[in-house]
Formats: sequence, C-alpha cells, structure tokens
Amino acid sequence: MKPAKDWKIEILAVGSELLTPHFQDTNSLYLTKRLNDLGLDVQIKTIVGDQWDNLCLAFRQILARTDLMIATGGLGPTKDDRTREALASVLDRKLLFRDDLLRAIERRFSSRQMKMPEVNKKQAYLIEDAVVLENKNGTAPGQWIDTGSDTVILLPGPPHEIKPMFENYVWPRLQAFQNRYIYRRVIKTAGLTESQIETYLGDLYPKILEVQLTTLASPGQIAIHLKSSSDKSISQAKHKVGQAIKLICDALEKGVYSTEGEELEEVIGKYLKKKHQTVAVAESCTGGFLGHRITNVSGSSEYFLQGILAYSNTAKTDLLGVSPEIIDKYGAVSPQVALTMATGIRERANATYGLSITGIAGPSGGTKEKPVGLVYIALAHDQDVLVKKNLFLGDRNAIKFQSSQKALDMLRRHLSGTSQS
Amino acid sequence: MKPAKDWKIEILAVGSELLTPHFQDTNSLYLTKRLNDLGLDVQIKTIVGDQWDNLCLAFRQILARTDLMIATGGLGPTKDDRTREALASVLDRKLLFRDDLLRAIERRFSSRQMKMPEVNKKQAYLIEDAVVLENKNGTAPGQWIDTGSDTVILLPGPPHEIKPMFENYVWPRLQAFQNRYIYRRVIKTAGLTESQIETYLGDLYPKILEVQLTTLASPGQIAIHLKSSSDKSISQAKHKVGQAIKLICDALEKGVYSTEGEELEEVIGKYLKKKHQTVAVAESCTGGFLGHRITNVSGSSEYFLQGILAYSNTAKTDLLGVSPEIIDKYGAVSPQVALTMATGIRERANATYGLSITGIAGPSGGTKEKPVGLVYIALAHDQDVLVKKNLFLGDRNAIKFQSSQKALDMLRRHLSGTSQS
Repeated sequence: MKPAKDWKIEILAVGSELLTPHFQDTNSLYLTKRLNDLGLDVQIKTIVGDQWDNLCLAFRQILARTDLMIATGGLGPTKDDRTREALASVLDRKLLFRDDLLRAIERRFSSRQMKMPEVNKKQAYLIEDAVVLENKNGTAPGQWIDTGSDTVILLPGPPHEIKPMFENYVWPRLQAFQNRYIYRRVIKTAGLTESQIETYLGDLYPKILEVQLTTLASPGQIAIHLKSSSDKSISQAKHKVGQAIKLICDALEKGVYSTEGEELEEVIGKYLKKKHQTVAVAESCTGGFLGHRITNVSGSSEYFLQGILAYSNTAKTDLLGVSPEIIDKYGAVSPQVALTMATGIRERANATYGLSITGIAGPSGGTKEKPVGLVYIALAHDQDVLVKKNLFLGDRNAIKFQSSQKALDMLRRHLSGTSQS
Repeated sequence: MKPAKDWKIEILAVGSELLTPHFQDTNSLYLTKRLNDLGLDVQIKTIVGDQWDNLCLAFRQILARTDLMIATGGLGPTKDDRTREALASVLDRKLLFRDDLLRAIERRFSSRQMKMPEVNKKQAYLIEDAVVLENKNGTAPGQWIDTGSDTVILLPGPPHEIKPMFENYVWPRLQAFQNRYIYRRVIKTAGLTESQIETYLGDLYPKILEVQLTTLASPGQIAIHLKSSSDKSISQAKHKVGQAIKLICDALEKGVYSTEGEELEEVIGKYLKKKHQTVAVAESCTGGFLGHRITNVSGSSEYFLQGILAYSNTAKTDLLGVSPEIIDKYGAVSPQVALTMATGIRERANATYGLSITGIAGPSGGTKEKPVGLVYIALAHDQDVLVKKNLFLGDRNAIKFQSSQKALDMLRRHLSGTSQS
C-alpha cells in the first residue's frame, strides 16, 4: 500500500437536500480538518442526491480514482436512503443481515420507551466483510470496507452522529497509517489593513518557507492561518509554526490580539478578570451589539456592569448626561457626544472603563458632512478619554460589527499596556 | 435538444481553498436557487482544487454525463488559475487572444489609476467559439460554450462578480429554454414546536399535493418552505402556492409571523411604525442582543427609544428601580424582577412598550431550582404586564437567541391583536 501522505482521498456527501439552495454539506469541513490533522489532504468533494443512478455512478467513478473515500449520509431508514445498497451493488458484494446490529437498534428505541419501526430493520444490514463503526448517537452504524485497492468509509449524515464516530473509530484506524504530521495555529489581528499585513509579512516569507500562511480578511478582522508539516514528528511541525508565530508577532506587534483562536471579547475578559477591573457601555448606532459581544463570554458578569442603549437623543440626555446644547451644536454623531457618553456611563456605573459608540449605521441617515459609516468611539478611564473617528464601509451589519470590533480593540490595547496608535 | 426540464445539470466549483476546512462553496447555493427558479434541478455538485489532472478529469467526466454544466472559479490571473485552459484542453479547442477583452481589462485598471500587471493578460483569452459574458465587477470575463451536445458556462469565483453576470447574461439565455415554472415562498413561525406544526400540516397534505413543503427548524424558529411548479405558467405555480399558504396560515393562526421572508424584528417594526408606538428594552442575560436585533432594522430609530443592559444587580436597582428586597427575596432571575424591569424601562423611556429579559444563559450559574436556560420575559404596556417563564435548551448563544425571539414574539402577538397563548 502507498504511504498515507500519497493517498488520493475524496469525500462524497449524499442527500437530495444538499442539492437545494437551503443546505450545505458541512460535514466535509470537519472531516477535512481531521484528515489534515493526520497529514492527509482531500482532492475532490462530490455531492449527489438520492437517485440510484447518480449514486452508483459517483461510487464507481470515485472508487476508480481514490485510495480512501469517505461517504456521508443516506444510511437512514427511509426508502430514499440507499447509500449502503448502492455501494454494495457497485462493489458487487452482498448485504448481510446482522442480528447484533438489529438488537442494538432495538435497544436504542426501547431505551426511549419506543418500539422500533419496521423500516429501521434495513440499518442492520452490513456490506460483506465490512467492519462495523458503532453509532452511539443514532441508529445507523457506520461501515469500514477494504476492497483490496481502496478503503471506503460509510458514515451517517447528522453532524452529531458523525463526529464521535470519526473520533472514536475512524481516527485511530487512520492514525495507524500516519506518516506526516501537521500543526496549525491562527493569529488574529485588529486595527491593521490587509495590505499593511502583507507588507509586514513580505519580509518574513523567506525566513518561514516551511510554514504555509493563509490570510483570511473580513471587515474589522484579519486572521493569519499557519500550517506546517513534518514527516518525522508533530513536535517538529509545532516548532516551525512556533518560530513563525514569534516572528509575525514581533512584526505586527500590538496588532495581534490572539494566537490561541480567541475572540476580542474573550481577550478583554481575561485582562479585566486578572486586573479586577470593570467595564460599562453606552451604545447608540450599535444598539446593543457591543454589550451582546461582551456578554457572549461565560463569566462576563464578573466585569460587565451595565449598558445603556441611548438610541434617541432624549435617552442620551436623560441616561448619560449629554446636554441638549452639545447635541444641538455638534450633532448626536460627534466626538463631543461620544466623549460625554463614555464618561457618563463610566460614572453612572462606577466602572473602571466606559466605552461608547455613536454613529450612522445606514443605509439611511447619512449626509455629505456625516456620511453613512461615520462612527465616533470613545474609551473613558481615570481622568482620560480617548475618542476615535472612524469611517467604516459596508452595510448596516458590517458597520455595527466594525464599530464593536474597534471599541473592543481600543480597550484591549489599553489593557495590554500598549499605546494607542 | 431535450426540453430544459429534462436536462442533466451539474455544478463544478474550482479552487484549492474549497478543499480546506476554512471555505465552503457558497456560489452553488445561489446558482441552484436561480436554476430552480427556471424549473431546472441540479443533479451533482463537484469541488476540485487547482491541480491540472483533477481539473481535466472533472471536466471530462462531468461533460460525459450532463446537458448543462456551470463551472465557477479558477479564472484569475495567477498560475494556479487554469479552469479556462483545462476546459479548452478537454474540449480540444484553441484559446484565442481577444484584443477587445484585453482593452476592457486594461480600462478596469486604468480607471483606478493602476497599470495592468502582465499576468492579467491571460484573462483576455477566449475558448474557440465561446460567447463572452461580461464581468462588470472583476477582470475575468465569463464564457458560454456550446459543444453541440452540451452547454458549459464558465464563471469567476467571487460571489459579487458571479451574481450580476448570472442575472444579466446567463439568466436571459437560459430563460429562452424555460418550459417549467417554479414559485417559492417561506412561511415563518414562532412559538410552535416542530411536532405541533407537523400535526397541523398532517391534515393539510392531501389538500396541497402539488405543493412541496420543507420544514426547516432551528431553536426558536421554524420555517416552512413552499414550492410549486407548472409546465404552463408562473401564475399557475403561484396560484397553487397561494392556496397552500392560505390553508397553512388558517391552520397555524397566530403562530405565523411572516409569509414574506421577514425577520420578527422587521415585523414588529412595521407594526410600531404604523401605530406610531415605541418600545424600550431592559436586558440582563441577553446583554444587548435584543436591542441589537431591534436596531438591525433600518429606520428603527423611529420607534426604538432606549435600552438598559442591567447585568449587575446594582444596575437593576439603580437604572430600573428593582428594589434590592425583591432581588434578595426572589432572586435576579424571577418573574418579580422581570416584571419590575419591564415596567421600569417603560416608565423611564416613556415608551408604549417595555420588554425585559432576565435569565441564566449558562454554561455556569445554574442551580437545581434555577437551571441554565431558565429565562423570564416580560412585556409591559398600559396598565398590564405579561410575564412568561421559559426553559430554553442549548448553549449560551442559543439561549440568548431564543430569549430575544420569544420577547419579540410576545410583542408581535400583542401588536397583531391576537391573544397570548
């Protein structure tokens, strides 16, 4: 048999719902990640419906070109579910009834005080010489079939069934073939543009040739995915990635907020907990999204005290002490109002930090002087207040997200002790 | 040529990034929807990377089995982008340089004060006898190729390039073949379980045989997708769906909040605008998510006055007038506190409606008496307050979402004049 790193590997997803506009095959993302972790790459993915001809055609063509094939879905009890039958037919193998499998399915139903419907009986059939992959979260067992030249793994469709089956029964079997080790990490950044990052990285590329970098940019956040492989050991792959992370963090400095995959709100949560400090927010155009993100972190009640959603001008005055004269003179979207909102919420909540956001999320409400996307963000602490003017692009949701991201990043940079740029 | 409704249709997505754990092919969902709108179904979807052999193999095998093939991606300027070249090779057709295409690409660069890089020149090559599909949002033109037996459509990968190209150039060409008409609508419901809906629909199925129903359930919301087709006209298909919608709305009554695809926050926004009424929110465990959803609607400043994120008990007391005695006696997660939060925010904001949420989003903080997922939601109006106890399942995010959904639905049911169940 070929060494595993040279295997041709394909994934087949079966299910007519996957050929509608409503459903994606997401199992293949999980499977690809876990195969990559074993040093294995996926070459082709195919998605077919439940029609017998297409199913058999897919099996026949994929078997002719792969070493390892993973097929998901179509193992259910209904007449539409014919993945098992199609593969048996293409391999010209019998489907054998297994009494132990039937009893396991019956037990699953009886444990929930139900009688097994007659249709489920078909799930007790195993392709000749296949190995059973136990399914603890569903009635359809998986199957592992060696054809001599190929390996075919049949798994059910529901993600919560597939994952434990893969981890418990497929992973150890594939791991026995492993002869390449892959290590992966993600560096998350805020406050840098994609071209700034490209410029910084440009000088580093020659120094980290053995690490593959992929930059994923979306408004407000850019992540750098690092991947390295070794034919010898995982620690060698880790070492290469570790060196690259160090070089990139040195180059991007305060632009990096996590090398552990955390979100900004988790990072500030850790700082605040450690320092026994607290935060309160005053939001206008984000309408609660900043508070929502901060409170997405379990345990945030330790440091998040309160928030004011001052959508109307009256609310800005009544709840945050922004004087009507300031609003009249400078407008609700102004550095003056942002500043007063931040100091107002900080005082009112008796918090270490007050964060405020006021802006125009659009699509309406913009003017030539104050266009859609203009957002003032302020951070109040001790005696100082930092106010930043921003011009964000994108739709309402993108502007809300970027505003919250910038506010969290201002607090993060302050908490980390780095200066504001 | 076969009638269009009998065509075998496949989609090929090209790009090595689509074989990593990070990216999904989402173009095919859009393409499938638009093909379905023309009465056309997709049989198989294939995803390949940029390797020459796999690319040629995919083209060869798909061409052998389809009438219509749409391939996306791999038309860029880099060496990796070889979709055009692979298809020409498989079809045994020449790639012809087109001066007009080059000039269009050069114009695109010069309009942004840039010089066209030499590598982009390859995008000016057209497969022999192909029809150009203009790309107004990128440099890679699409191509429409008739092979005699098959039609192949090449489109670039970026979604914002694909969509206008399909709408402007592919849609009218395919429409000429149309001989089946499909009409689709979505009924959105809240406050009903999947099995309740199934029970209601069970009686209706025999009456709406010509409408295909798909129920998509996620925590807090269940949508019923309706689809009907006609070989005669779109109005016939519309008529069938319209009848089904009427029957389903009659059966599900107040459970239905939209038949137009709107979100709950849009529905309440329309009611509030029409009635010139206002709302303010007091949130604890949702931490701003309810305000965020209400303010996701453009123009919500007309009816959303303010919100208080009373995460700490002090905030509940200071900002909403919840007495410390009530919190001591009943706990922060109690019907008494929910009620006082709702009346408190209503008074403070001088709003028509006050909505409040207090609960335990988890994963920590639950007890035997007050488990994770216990959420009290209150709606205050005039002299009355409605308080509902809920026990939601799922993780922190799922509990936050279901809480906001229930709060919006309580307001929606009140606004629509139907009684609370």
